[in-house]
Amino acid sequence: MSTIRATVWNEFRHEKASEAIAAIYPNGIHGAIAEGLAEHGIEAHTATLDEPEHGLTDQVLADTDVLIWWGHKAHGEVSEEIVERVQKRVWNGMGLITLHSGHLSKPFKRLMGTSCELKWREADERERLWVVSPGHPIVEGIDEYIEIDEEEMYGEHFDIPQPDELVFVSWFEGGDVFRSGCCFSRGAGKIFYFRPGHETYPTYYRAEIRQVIANAVRWAAPVVRPGRTFGNKKVSLEPIREKGESDRVRMG
Amino acid sequence: MSTIRATVWNEFRHEKASEAIAAIYPNGIHGAIAEGLAEHGIEAHTATLDEPEHGLTDQVLADTDVLIWWGHKAHGEVSEEIVERVQKRVWNGMGLITLHSGHLSKPFKRLMGTSCELKWREADERERLWVVSPGHPIVEGIDEYIEIDEEEMYGEHFDIPQPDELVFVSWFEGGDVFRSGCCFSRGAGKIFYFRPGHETYPTYYRAEIRQVIANAVRWAAPVVRPGRTFGNKKVSLEPIREKGESDRVRMG
Amino acid sequence: MSTIRATVWNEFRHEKASEAIAAIYPNGIHGAIAEGLAEHGIEAHTATLDEPEHGLTDQVLADTDVLIWWGHKAHGEVSEEIVERVQKRVWNGMGLITLHSGHLSKPFKRLMGTSCELKWREADERERLWVVSPGHPIVEGIDEYIEIDEEEMYGEHFDIPQPDELVFVSWFEGGDVFRSGCCFSRGAGKIFYFRPGHETYPTYYRAEIRQVIANAVRWAAPVVRPGRTFGNKKVSLEPIREKGESDRVRMG
Amino acid sequence: MSTIRATVWNEFRHEKASEAIAAIYPNGIHGAIAEGLAEHGIEAHTATLDEPEHGLTDQVLADTDVLIWWGHKAHGEVSEEIVERVQKRVWNGMGLITLHSGHLSKPFKRLMGTSCELKWREADERERLWVVSPGHPIVEGIDEYIEIDEEEMYGEHFDIPQPDELVFVSWFEGGDVFRSGCCFSRGAGKIFYFRPGHETYPTYYRAEIRQVIANAVRWAAPVVRPGRTFGNKKVSLEPIREKGESDRVRMG
Repeated sequence: MSTIRATVWNEFRHEKASEAIAAIYPNGIHGAIAEGLAEHGIEAHTATLDEPEHGLTDQVLADTDVLIWWGHKAHGEVSEEIVERVQKRVWNGMGLITLHSGHLSKPFKRLMGTSCELKWREADERERLWVVSPGHPIVEGIDEYIEIDEEEMYGEHFDIPQPDELVFVSWFEGGDVFRSGCCFSRGAGKIFYFRPGHETYPTYYRAEIRQVIANAVRWAAPVVRPGRTFGNKKVSLEPIREKGESDRVRMG
Repeated sequence: MSTIRATVWNEFRHEKASEAIAAIYPNGIHGAIAEGLAEHGIEAHTATLDEPEHGLTDQVLADTDVLIWWGHKAHGEVSEEIVERVQKRVWNGMGLITLHSGHLSKPFKRLMGTSCELKWREADERERLWVVSPGHPIVEGIDEYIEIDEEEMYGEHFDIPQPDELVFVSWFEGGDVFRSGCCFSRGAGKIFYFRPGHETYPTYYRAEIRQVIANAVRWAAPVVRPGRTFGNKKVSLEPIREKGESDRVRMG
Repeated sequence: MSTIRATVWNEFRHEKASEAIAAIYPNGIHGAIAEGLAEHGIEAHTATLDEPEHGLTDQVLADTDVLIWWGHKAHGEVSEEIVERVQKRVWNGMGLITLHSGHLSKPFKRLMGTSCELKWREADERERLWVVSPGHPIVEGIDEYIEIDEEEMYGEHFDIPQPDELVFVSWFEGGDVFRSGCCFSRGAGKIFYFRPGHETYPTYYRAEIRQVIANAVRWAAPVVRPGRTFGNKKVSLEPIREKGESDRVRMG
Repeated sequence: MSTIRATVWNEFRHEKASEAIAAIYPNGIHGAIAEGLAEHGIEAHTATLDEPEHGLTDQVLADTDVLIWWGHKAHGEVSEEIVERVQKRVWNGMGLITLHSGHLSKPFKRLMGTSCELKWREADERERLWVVSPGHPIVEGIDEYIEIDEEEMYGEHFDIPQPDELVFVSWFEGGDVFRSGCCFSRGAGKIFYFRPGHETYPTYYRAEIRQVIANAVRWAAPVVRPGRTFGNKKVSLEPIREKGESDRVRMG
């Protein structure tokens, strides 16, 4: 298998606006995630909101096998043109890993077709992500659960379509549950939503979280095959009989 | 169970533009579908593209349990505002039955998150819709297959998300197959895509087709329950302990 | 819609062996469940392990639309013959609601194809069943969650196939989660697994629990349609050409 | 990734009983399949019905990542003990690829929980397997469809649980369709059913068929992670409060 090329996209605003967050992520959230991917042998590039075309030019997307998306407070600043570009690239096979508050990002909402709303609470809550799909490649190397002592809470109802495969379900100290690892496909592209990673916690340095994201990148990488074709297929593959007659056969 | 209220929406253009089609559907495609629903005890109203707000005012949608959508050549004329209104009403529980060429309608594409493209051919082809989900309420009263002697062909790949439940698979004379009866959910709303019904064939007068559409309306009707709530839930349902201490408990 | 006929099956041993449990369920667990169904207009019969053929004669099963199964400590005493009879009746359309410790009952394990094992603990734990499928008919009338102050804990991993539809996810006080409302289909039959109902708690008197079970019975009721046919279909529906020749057509 | 070890199991009776079939598969059907896997870099062993323990000792299964199963006329001769052994090994992570007439094999039926019946016809019929899941790893390198000029027909209804992922749908000349590539999971094991391969046709020499089987083996290989645990978890991960009191906390 050739090397997988991932692009880690981050709106990169919290780290500039808050010293406390910058102290946790001195190289940005994207930097920490890319570092984790590199540890797992994945070629990781980064792109951020304030770059031209948000760093997601046609060429960058064409060269990206899997796009990882972290956004939170600037969803509205992502241009419609880039959103549409990302959506179409997913349809053509690029994987997409949407992290944490990216549930309300424009590309994810467009690809889901739902509001993607949920309940949330910032209360330094314990989260325990239980594996419910024990043979899934995304849990390679992961024990029965991942425990995170302090995280933001996300709770049900999480307004997404029913996942094709549900991989993790989170328990939260305050009494909530959440479908925290969810697989979808859209066109030829595979999508994984993974919940943890609030900007005020060092979640993306944790070994298990890095393992899950790397596993997800491998799972979401495109398969190599001829493109799909659509539209008017005037010539049929098999003969179509003229109706009202019994044996006469014509090619469509 | 109280009476289900369906609204049959039709762009209603083919019937005005073509005498041949008007001869098949003198009361419009919507008229034929509504007549079929009435036969099955469903209260059916109609709405069409050229009415104010396309006939889909807030009040009409609020009073609609299940919306049936037929459109083909005027998808682009449906206003974004109405599309968004339909999408949100589905999220809040209204059922949606998308028929035939409605696969490219704006509401369906927005709810799916995919291109919804497919292969097609107009060649008076035989279609045989095989039931693959034998216990599903949508096939109540339906035999092992429905055979239609002449229809437009739709072929794979049909670019939709994997259906939650696949009910029918079509065989076509010219060598193609198609997932022709597909269930989805989006928010609290249930969606059924049903393939047959090209404007040049009297498909919506057929008893089995009417039966399937009526079954689908019953299946897609909203359930009555309190609305979902989203957003910041500052007060937790269970105590959250201050971290670093063992036994102290605080309410969030 | 004609009246749905449910049969509530209970091994009926705990109630005879323990005065404390008999005090909670003086008419047996089956009696309490049947009473709840009757409140919702469902015709409910009962059957128990120590009756001849465990109360599940061919005639009883033929007359049963939906079978509800509660068993715990006597799974091994259920005869293979009756298990096979139940399995085949499900394949032919009968609904099956498996409750609580019925996860290890022979019919459920045979229909799932997995071990159906799980984690458990008896510790008077709080359970909160969150609705994750807000438009599903099984949650008609149910709020965002059902809270039960004291129940036995069941935790993941629950070794079942991925449900066709996941309706409830439970939060437990002790740190576990559980997929507590799960829909499956097998042949023409629909199956719902519903977690609550340990014998030492009065769970089956609770209004929401009765509501869910009644909803599940309605959801699982058979659809009326011709039976499926299998086996050698020597005569094809369409002509099959002799290979190596172009236009000659023969009926298979 | 380390080398995947596959075991190809064949009942190996047709090849001994029929000269015509032996001429097609001089090294047995298992030999042809194993040869195809070796071409794709997969370490392939074989096992057959008439070997001691059908060639499937505990050690062989422990050393098998993915088991491929071809059986037809001797399903009844496979011992219950070996069937149970295979089922449990699948639960613990071994992949299983069930080919063609293996749909009625004991391990597959046990893992599905359904009758696995279908319609069939031997009429040298053309089959066209359409890809309906374009981003799935099992279709790597495969075009929009695979066309086989002559095969046995299998038709719906195919009595299996709804697949987790549907990868191929077959068109047959005689008017039938079939879900011919189906993914399931049971426990930690992944299962793929793939339809083509009647003993009277040289199907397992075809490049696309070999590609699909090799892809499926890679997809079905186990993930490496700690085993699941089940049973009584007396000690809870979180404190459980004594009910009726507000703040007192005890460890379960």
